[in-house]
Amino acid sequence: MYIADTTTLIEPFGIDLDLERGIMQNPGHHLKRHASDMRGYYKDEEALEKLIQEHHDPLHYEVFETPVPKEDGHLMYCISTLQPGLVGNECFMTKGHYHARVNTGEIYLCLRGVGYMVMKREDGECRYEKMVRGNMVYVPPYWAHRSVNTGTQEPLISFCVYPADCGYNYGDIEKEGFPKRIFNENGAIKIL
Amino acid sequence: MYIADTTTLIEPFGIDLDLERGIMQNPGHHLKRHASDMRGYYKDEEALEKLIQEHHDPLHYEVFETPVPKEDGHLMYCISTLQPGLVGNECFMTKGHYHARVNTGEIYLCLRGVGYMVMKREDGECRYEKMVRGNMVYVPPYWAHRSVNTGTQEPLISFCVYPADCGYNYGDIEKEGFPKRIFNENGAIKIL
Repeated sequence: MYIADTTTLIEPFGIDLDLERGIMQNPGHHLKRHASDMRGYYKDEEALEKLIQEHHDPLHYEVFETPVPKEDGHLMYCISTLQPGLVGNECFMTKGHYHARVNTGEIYLCLRGVGYMVMKREDGECRYEKMVRGNMVYVPPYWAHRSVNTGTQEPLISFCVYPADCGYNYGDIEKEGFPKRIFNENGAIKIL
Repeated sequence: MYIADTTTLIEPFGIDLDLERGIMQNPGHHLKRHASDMRGYYKDEEALEKLIQEHHDPLHYEVFETPVPKEDGHLMYCISTLQPGLVGNECFMTKGHYHARVNTGEIYLCLRGVGYMVMKREDGECRYEKMVRGNMVYVPPYWAHRSVNTGTQEPLISFCVYPADCGYNYGDIEKEGFPKRIFNENGAIKIL
C-alpha cells in the first residue's frame, strides 16, 4: 500500500450540522457577508446603498466551515446560507469565485430553498443549474460559480465539498463579472 | 490563470436526489449488495445463511452514483442506503474499503437513520463516529471505512463525496477485518 509522506495525518471527526437552519456547531471558521460587502456586484448600486442604510447593513450570506489540512487528498466542506431578498429587482446572490487551483471542481447539495447556481468559464461560456432541495450541482474544474436565491421567503441552504487545496480566486471573476444576472420582475424570475 | 492540460473538461450538470428515500434519478451507476454478497463479513455465518435462505437473499445496501472523469481535481459523489437489520445480533453494515489512492479522504453527510462510521488505519488504530441526520463524518486520508446501521426501522442514508481518482481497495480490509463490530443485544447497542 502506497503511503505518501506529504499528506498530513489527522484523526477522524464528526461535525453536527443543522440542515434546516444552515448552522454548523462549533465551526472553525464562520464567514459573514453583509450587504455592504456586496458593493460593486449588483446592477442597481443605488438600491444596494438604500438597503444598507434602511436595513442597517443586513446579513447577506454566511458560510460555516472547519478547516482540514489544505492539501491534495483532503476535502473541505461547508454549509452556506444565502438570505432571500432583492437589490432593486436583482435576486440576492453570493460574490462567486474561481478556485485558485482552477482545475478543481466543487459539489453543492441544496438542502433548502430555491435558486440557481450560475457558472462561468474563463472563455466567457455561462451555464446555470436549478437549485432546490435534493438537487446536487456539479461545478466542474475551471468554472467560476455563484449561487442566487430566487425565493422570497426562505434562505437558500447548501452543503458543499471541494478539494482542500483548491483555494479561492475572487479577483478575476470580480473583474470579469458573470454574463447572466437573475431578476425577480413582479414575481417572474428572469435570467438576463 | 494556470490551466492544466490533463484535466478533462466537462459541462456543469445537476442531479436530482430523493434525500428521504436515498434515490438518485437517472444514475450512471447503481450498485446493489445483497445479503449473499456479505459472506465472510459477519461473525455469525450461520445466521447470514439463514437470512439469505429465509428472506430470499434480501437487499443489504445500495449506492447510486453518476461518474465524472476519474482524475485529480474532479469529485465523485454518491447517495447510499443501508437497510436496518441484524445478522445474529450484529448490525447490518457495508463491506468497507480503503481508497486505492490511500492518501485521500471522504466526507459522509448523514441524511436519515442512525448508526456509526467505523474506521481503521493500516497500523490497526480504530475509531468510530456517530451517524445521525445532520452529522457529517470526516474520513481522513489512510482510513478504511464502513458504515453500520444501528436502527431497527429506518434505513441509514448518507450523501458522500470523495476525490474522483481515489479508487477502491476492498481486498486489504477484507483480509485485515475491522477491529470493532457493532451488536444489538436485546436493544442495547454494543461496540465490541
